[in-house]
Amino acid sequence: MTSHERTGQAEPPDLDVVLTSRARIARNLSGLPFVHRATADQRQSVISRVQLALEPECCSETTTWVDLESVSPLQRRVLYERHLISRQHADQQGPRGVAVAQDESMSVMVNEEDHVRMHALSPGLQPHACFERVLAMDKAAEGAVEWAFHERWGYQTACPTNAGTGVRFSAMLHLPALRLTRELEKVRHAAKDLQLAVRGYYGEGSESSGHFYQVSNQITLGCTEEELLDRFMSTIVPGIVEYERSARQALLRRDRLALEDRVHRDLAILRSARVMKVDEAMRRLSTVRLGVCLELIPNVALDCINGLFQMIQSGHLQQQAGKSLSPPESQAARAELLRQRLSG
Amino acid sequence: MTSHERTGQAEPPDLDVVLTSRARIARNLSGLPFVHRATADQRQSVISRVQLALEPECCSETTTWVDLESVSPLQRRVLYERHLISRQHADQQGPRGVAVAQDESMSVMVNEEDHVRMHALSPGLQPHACFERVLAMDKAAEGAVEWAFHERWGYQTACPTNAGTGVRFSAMLHLPALRLTRELEKVRHAAKDLQLAVRGYYGEGSESSGHFYQVSNQITLGCTEEELLDRFMSTIVPGIVEYERSARQALLRRDRLALEDRVHRDLAILRSARVMKVDEAMRRLSTVRLGVCLELIPNVALDCINGLFQMIQSGHLQQQAGKSLSPPESQAARAELLRQRLSG
Repeated sequence: MTSHERTGQAEPPDLDVVLTSRARIARNLSGLPFVHRATADQRQSVISRVQLALEPECCSETTTWVDLESVSPLQRRVLYERHLISRQHADQQGPRGVAVAQDESMSVMVNEEDHVRMHALSPGLQPHACFERVLAMDKAAEGAVEWAFHERWGYQTACPTNAGTGVRFSAMLHLPALRLTRELEKVRHAAKDLQLAVRGYYGEGSESSGHFYQVSNQITLGCTEEELLDRFMSTIVPGIVEYERSARQALLRRDRLALEDRVHRDLAILRSARVMKVDEAMRRLSTVRLGVCLELIPNVALDCINGLFQMIQSGHLQQQAGKSLSPPESQAARAELLRQRLSG
Repeated sequence: MTSHERTGQAEPPDLDVVLTSRARIARNLSGLPFVHRATADQRQSVISRVQLALEPECCSETTTWVDLESVSPLQRRVLYERHLISRQHADQQGPRGVAVAQDESMSVMVNEEDHVRMHALSPGLQPHACFERVLAMDKAAEGAVEWAFHERWGYQTACPTNAGTGVRFSAMLHLPALRLTRELEKVRHAAKDLQLAVRGYYGEGSESSGHFYQVSNQITLGCTEEELLDRFMSTIVPGIVEYERSARQALLRRDRLALEDRVHRDLAILRSARVMKVDEAMRRLSTVRLGVCLELIPNVALDCINGLFQMIQSGHLQQQAGKSLSPPESQAARAELLRQRLSG
């Protein structure tokens, strides 16, 4: 039973393949230099003005403002592992911060690459809901600040690939069957032809850990947000989703027992190991997630598995332990967490 | 709890390393050619005379006579898998048979390489008990038959390596820690220097499946049985046993968590897999046996594991299924058996 079933909410659509969807709007304040050229004072001024403009979104009771300059590296790491800030945002210097909704359905990075990057996040394939949410934030802010805007080029961004609408849609896709059937390269090629970026679980440069692939539009210029949304989220992503589902059914048809064997072995190892590296855990959780979606495993909730992909990261483990952990200590803590969470 | 604890019997000595000990006496009837030169009639005559001579041992209520010429290949295979007959005895042609005690502590192969090969088998390191038992059989038979005997060379056997006393002692040793610490080659070299033969779980030519090594004396000529027994079983084997125990303790000291990890992973896989080849099962059962002996696993009985090494063999699986099984069917049946037997 998923948490949605428990709470009576509707199950998010396409959750078997789409872990989350996301919409992002990049904006910069008019009259102030881009972040990489701004002084500390100017960046501080960005923070104040954005906080004021986005007060209802960023400073409500259900939202936390995190001053990234003053928190510990571990706290930054945990935010990064939860996909609430980028690695760049975690690692860079100077005044910067992030507003995070309690339910993590929204985050606003301030002074990352652009002055403001507003994100809305939903489980499953719900791009419209995400887009409406960031659009509302953008509209709310527009009354209080002036965004850098060019008549011809649209919203200005630090990197030209984000100029124009400044909107990016992305979906975190779980594609274990396409990987097992070796059809993933086809998807990569198709994505390239369609001008989509394909990244790993932790964005640019990260490996496709756990067989997760973050697919997003590369172009934000030359079309409206609605056209982008329609093209990307209403046709391309559902196409990949169906492709993965076919591969899953093909695996079942071809050798159901071999697939069951794989799934049950991986679950058993996750439930029993005493030490485990993160890559191994991601890989085995991925197989188990496939098994849960195909109903090969009773009594393991999809929610539980989805949460573990983040909980097993080193930062989370150290936060949980309340101290820094050496690599061997992390491996032992990871195995213990998995045993606890997955034991029947 | 072992079956010995349950029944109140004393635990066999050195069961942590010595699966079984065995004494064997090879004898041939005087006045009849060796098996490989004997006609079918002569072999039949061997059978009749041996059955008569060994009546109390071979034809009692607790002993079964199996006519290997008339039983099915599967029945022969099962006897071979239980170490009650040799592969040669199973596969050769012509009149031949075996008397097997109900508790399998004794077997008498008739018309294998020699007319008679009497075996006594005990769990753990109990060579004296085994030797006394085969000696008693030999003495009992001597009243009724005349063994081929040469004043100078002793008891005559089909192969000269068995001539003299005709006695061979062997021990089935479980040496997983020496394998893990890569010290097994030292044991092999020492065994060679001491004129011992080292074979695998299924005797000559078989691989050291499950990290079992059957160690036996190669020479039966030029010394008394007592000297052989004393040298082989009272000094050499206990030496290897201590060597393996030291290696186990070294593994625990060096990285207890890594060893626990290995043991628990292998047990989990045995409890969960849907298909499994025999080699993999032997290997993982071996690790689990090590874990049980080192008390790293609660609630798994050593008896259960010891029994599984035979029960997972193809012949046993087919006998259990009551039909012949293809390799994939065997792999599925093996996995199912392991799940059943090892589930908490």
